[in-house]
Amino acid sequence: MIIAVDAAGGDYFPENPVKGSIDAIEENDELAIILVGPEEIIKEELANYEFDEARIKVQDAPEIIEMDESPTQAVKTKQNSSIVKGVGMHKAGECDAFVSAGNTGALLAASIFLLGKLKGVSRPTIGAAFPTTQGVRLMMDVGANLEARPEMYGQFAQMGSIFAREIMGIENPKVGLLNVGEEKEKGTEELKEAFKELKSLPNFIGNIEGRDIFAAKADIFLCNGLVGNIVLKFGESIPDAIEIFIKKGIQKLQLGSQEAQLVGKVLKASLQEFNPDRIGGVPFLGVNGVSVVGHGSSSPLAIKNMILNAAKCVEHDINKKIVASLN
Amino acid sequence: MIIAVDAAGGDYFPENPVKGSIDAIEENDELAIILVGPEEIIKEELANYEFDEARIKVQDAPEIIEMDESPTQAVKTKQNSSIVKGVGMHKAGECDAFVSAGNTGALLAASIFLLGKLKGVSRPTIGAAFPTTQGVRLMMDVGANLEARPEMYGQFAQMGSIFAREIMGIENPKVGLLNVGEEKEKGTEELKEAFKELKSLPNFIGNIEGRDIFAAKADIFLCNGLVGNIVLKFGESIPDAIEIFIKKGIQKLQLGSQEAQLVGKVLKASLQEFNPDRIGGVPFLGVNGVSVVGHGSSSPLAIKNMILNAAKCVEHDINKKIVASLN
Repeated sequence: MIIAVDAAGGDYFPENPVKGSIDAIEENDELAIILVGPEEIIKEELANYEFDEARIKVQDAPEIIEMDESPTQAVKTKQNSSIVKGVGMHKAGECDAFVSAGNTGALLAASIFLLGKLKGVSRPTIGAAFPTTQGVRLMMDVGANLEARPEMYGQFAQMGSIFAREIMGIENPKVGLLNVGEEKEKGTEELKEAFKELKSLPNFIGNIEGRDIFAAKADIFLCNGLVGNIVLKFGESIPDAIEIFIKKGIQKLQLGSQEAQLVGKVLKASLQEFNPDRIGGVPFLGVNGVSVVGHGSSSPLAIKNMILNAAKCVEHDINKKIVASLN
Repeated sequence: MIIAVDAAGGDYFPENPVKGSIDAIEENDELAIILVGPEEIIKEELANYEFDEARIKVQDAPEIIEMDESPTQAVKTKQNSSIVKGVGMHKAGECDAFVSAGNTGALLAASIFLLGKLKGVSRPTIGAAFPTTQGVRLMMDVGANLEARPEMYGQFAQMGSIFAREIMGIENPKVGLLNVGEEKEKGTEELKEAFKELKSLPNFIGNIEGRDIFAAKADIFLCNGLVGNIVLKFGESIPDAIEIFIKKGIQKLQLGSQEAQLVGKVLKASLQEFNPDRIGGVPFLGVNGVSVVGHGSSSPLAIKNMILNAAKCVEHDINKKIVASLN
């Protein structure tokens, strides 16, 4: 199994992709990695490590797509970027998956353009692992489709169910439609139509509300990309915000430094569930390939987990299962 | 100043509305209250208290609109409900404002139907006080308008600015449009058009993202009711969820009971900012009157604060200021 890794993506390259790749091959004996990016800086970074050289190769891709660059423009003009090159190699069968912490839009555009869509898919979707009090669940879409047609909700639900079962280990994932109330006549026209489309799915539990997310009333929180993106980013801001609220609480109660330290330790242990690096990234579902995107701030741990996740998607052949489910 | 209070609304009536009203007249000498609801049960409840009887009257309204009843249907058929009666009294000039912890949709419908809209308002809006690390801010719309036209965003922004300044004490409230990115070309057509409409407002700071809410990058988080309702309810679920995360952290670290107690105390003090009762409720902005709705679970403190807020809206004549701003 060969996974290509974007060594020029994210906020900390080449360090984090290189370290994450080395950690990944140590954890999974079946893996080989191709690091894609400016050859010289990757090799310089690799020189800091000892590793099985037969299992990590470098593919030169000198151009760099910046994090805030216009996706379609970047993909068109930067043919020698790590993203276009890496996805191209995947398309050509030179690797089984591509993993990047770079520009999400550019990776999505390159994936759709070069790999194409799976049969029966109207639009690929981006999901995100979402921490709840019951463990990690799946929110989708979180930004690829700001509005969605009814049949797209149905496809998201089916693709997400396969991902949740095969990769997240949730045996019978329940799908809930994020809405303003539980009754089926609630919501926008988009949501009412989506409800009608979804109700034939055996694992659809109906509308859920914002308060049901943390309680994990569903395993898949279905929404359009506008709602998902705003809720996801708000959710990601919770640990830092809680830290500030707790600091204020400590001041209010005038705790001593030892007590404050204890509280800080508990807080850190408690909010670990929110660390997105533990998951690392979710593949675009619906593209004809395995293309995994992570946070720009991905740590080596996050990159490693993205690589292992990508390998799992290939092993479990989730695209084949998606096509079978949709057609 | 006479405030009518729904004594048959919310999850805990008549106890909480009665207690909240008594507390309100103790705090504000200028106030008189009319408790609206089934006369007998209100009088029975009042008998438990000593209070200035000249300042609390009862208006019989025997019918009860349940929390989950269809709003328009309820308003049409239950003419003798506390909501229809109370708003009707406000319309007739028998009180200066109406306050309820009852069925939000029914109160909105009754308010629009009986009081009408202010000149220049396309649609009234529901806002909500939202806790941030910098204090309470305003999110709007949170459910009255699941989709909104561009000019409605402009009106929400102006009405919200007046409310934030006059009632919340935020001198120069900054308006941010909740979106999936900061660039002006981001988002759905609805949001792109809203951006164009808003950019002429001097206090519009542009698009903001989900992560900017807790950081209070803006003072008014502008969104349609679908996004606002989901984010609001998700936000309201944070304290309970954090409590569960912290309990797990305490178990993980195997703290003793004294240490665990300390952490619990800090948590309680820290999350007080999330207690919606401290604010109590926000009026519908855009109706020709002062009609304040609160949470169904409103405590006596919440009801008291809703009453005091309503009085403040009347004193500050915010509707006159809204009309001046919009026309």
